[in-house]
Amino acid sequence: MVRKADECKVEHRDHMREGNGTVHIINFASKEELNNKGRLFSRITLNPGCSIGYHVHEGDTELYYMLKGEADYNDNGVMCTVSAGDVTFCPNGTGHGIANNSDDVVEFIALIVYD
Amino acid sequence: MVRKADECKVEHRDHMREGNGTVHIINFASKEELNNKGRLFSRITLNPGCSIGYHVHEGDTELYYMLKGEADYNDNGVMCTVSAGDVTFCPNGTGHGIANNSDDVVEFIALIVYD
Repeated sequence: MVRKADECKVEHRDHMREGNGTVHIINFASKEELNNKGRLFSRITLNPGCSIGYHVHEGDTELYYMLKGEADYNDNGVMCTVSAGDVTFCPNGTGHGIANNSDDVVEFIALIVYD
Repeated sequence: MVRKADECKVEHRDHMREGNGTVHIINFASKEELNNKGRLFSRITLNPGCSIGYHVHEGDTELYYMLKGEADYNDNGVMCTVSAGDVTFCPNGTGHGIANNSDDVVEFIALIVYD
């Protein structure tokens, strides 16, 4: 089965996890289409000034694969910079957040798999 | 934890699934890092003329998210064209293959989750 780009479910979330601005999410697949092994497989866009606030994962692990731009990443309390090609891991019981403090768009793939 | 782009494991597979040419795979995470819920989360590059031959998935589901270019996709026996933004699904017991018959590079994210 092929889901064309314009058939993917798009979400616009304001102040996601108490972050700034609006986060744009293109959802590739439902939980059922992920065989209930995860709950998110998406492309996320952070326009300049936008962020996803710091939050702790309970019962699952989230990975980001950075596609575009440069972002400030809170890696369980430790700040670092991530850019295209980098992969981030937030395992069960740890936290993360991501902010676009640059003048360019930040885009990444997000995947959440259950523990 | 952050895995920088140059720390990701890269594979170069010739005639993958009896396809043409060499397929380049950047692996983001191990099976263990996917909580054993899947076995592949990668970025795949097909240069012009390269392909992954048709094969059937047993015990898992593979999704592609097209990043770049235009490819010929064999969707369980039905041919179609996929391009940036499209999502393909190959559930347990069905088959797929993908070929770059264009003059430009094709890139996509691949995810395999177990059934």
